[in-house]
Amino acid sequence: MNGQTDHIPGGTGEGGGTTGGGADTGTGRQAILRAARRAFAFRPYAEVTLRAIAAEAGVSPSLIVKHFGTKERLFNAVADFGPAADALLAAPPASLGRHLVLALLSSRREQQSDPLLRVVFSLGKDDERTLLRERFDAQFTQRLAALLPGAGPGLRAELIAGQLLGLGVTLSLYRTGEAGRATDEHLADLYAPVLQHLITPADPV
Amino acid sequence: MNGQTDHIPGGTGEGGGTTGGGADTGTGRQAILRAARRAFAFRPYAEVTLRAIAAEAGVSPSLIVKHFGTKERLFNAVADFGPAADALLAAPPASLGRHLVLALLSSRREQQSDPLLRVVFSLGKDDERTLLRERFDAQFTQRLAALLPGAGPGLRAELIAGQLLGLGVTLSLYRTGEAGRATDEHLADLYAPVLQHLITPADPV
Repeated sequence: MNGQTDHIPGGTGEGGGTTGGGADTGTGRQAILRAARRAFAFRPYAEVTLRAIAAEAGVSPSLIVKHFGTKERLFNAVADFGPAADALLAAPPASLGRHLVLALLSSRREQQSDPLLRVVFSLGKDDERTLLRERFDAQFTQRLAALLPGAGPGLRAELIAGQLLGLGVTLSLYRTGEAGRATDEHLADLYAPVLQHLITPADPV
Repeated sequence: MNGQTDHIPGGTGEGGGTTGGGADTGTGRQAILRAARRAFAFRPYAEVTLRAIAAEAGVSPSLIVKHFGTKERLFNAVADFGPAADALLAAPPASLGRHLVLALLSSRREQQSDPLLRVVFSLGKDDERTLLRERFDAQFTQRLAALLPGAGPGLRAELIAGQLLGLGVTLSLYRTGEAGRATDEHLADLYAPVLQHLITPADPV
């Protein structure tokens, strides 16, 4: 089962070999979550089965039931951007740009997945995946907007969300490129001012 | 067939009703290209059929053969980021940030699809979709890097590509939000300085 090389959504592509279950902490819990993120982002809710998620995670369906109960509860766990927002938004506006970059990088490394990127893969037909987009907006973008000083925080928050999703895309697309080889500090030096410009604009438009 | 509301990849979600074929210019050519972008981004090359693309585009398979010949030639048409790069990179570095925003917005509106975003949906299993990523890198990112003054143009080009992909994501994700309601000029006022910071950094890192 380690022959697969899924990178996204969720996966950063650097740790595909750990989805085999058992090796990771939480007795396959993280592997289940990764497989579920992929499944719910790519397929309509009605077509997603716990059996298929279990197969991709390399665990038994009963282990999913043990950890998460029902498909609905597993979906809710996957659709929850709350913990990601807690980690990403834990800085005052004046230093939020740098914090966002470093927190995103830490999260991708520690969880072997991007904390936000799965919302991109939910762009598609209107079905239950709409809920994923609504949660993203409510739990991340609107919460970010409430933190922003200056005029037009809503639009700036939407653009900042896009910048973070774009950074995640670049880190996945170029994981063997220059972005993948750069240090966290170097990436923050380059990208934090870019974010900060929309967080605390010198000349609010 | 207009009951579907596919937004992405390619589609901006604002003109889903025109994928029915016949109504658009080029006798279904654009509808075929939109359907092909989706198909090749989401599915392995071997699994993509002209018949399925024709069904999604609302045209006959023979019309695809007439316009594009073979599946390989249709893939090459879809995987070509050259025309997008021509349009996006047609400005000197000093004004490239603003040009990128306005050209991206124009392209999305005129072609009812994002010129770059399909590469995001190619992030997945390693198969022929890898070719889409390689073309994106060669035809857009490396060409952009060659235009950038200052130190470390390769990494900055990868980050700028991410910013443009992120802008495309936000415009699709928030097409009924503030980003969708903002004027091109307002979006350029906010986002161009952000891009420009990585194009001509005041203090190259």
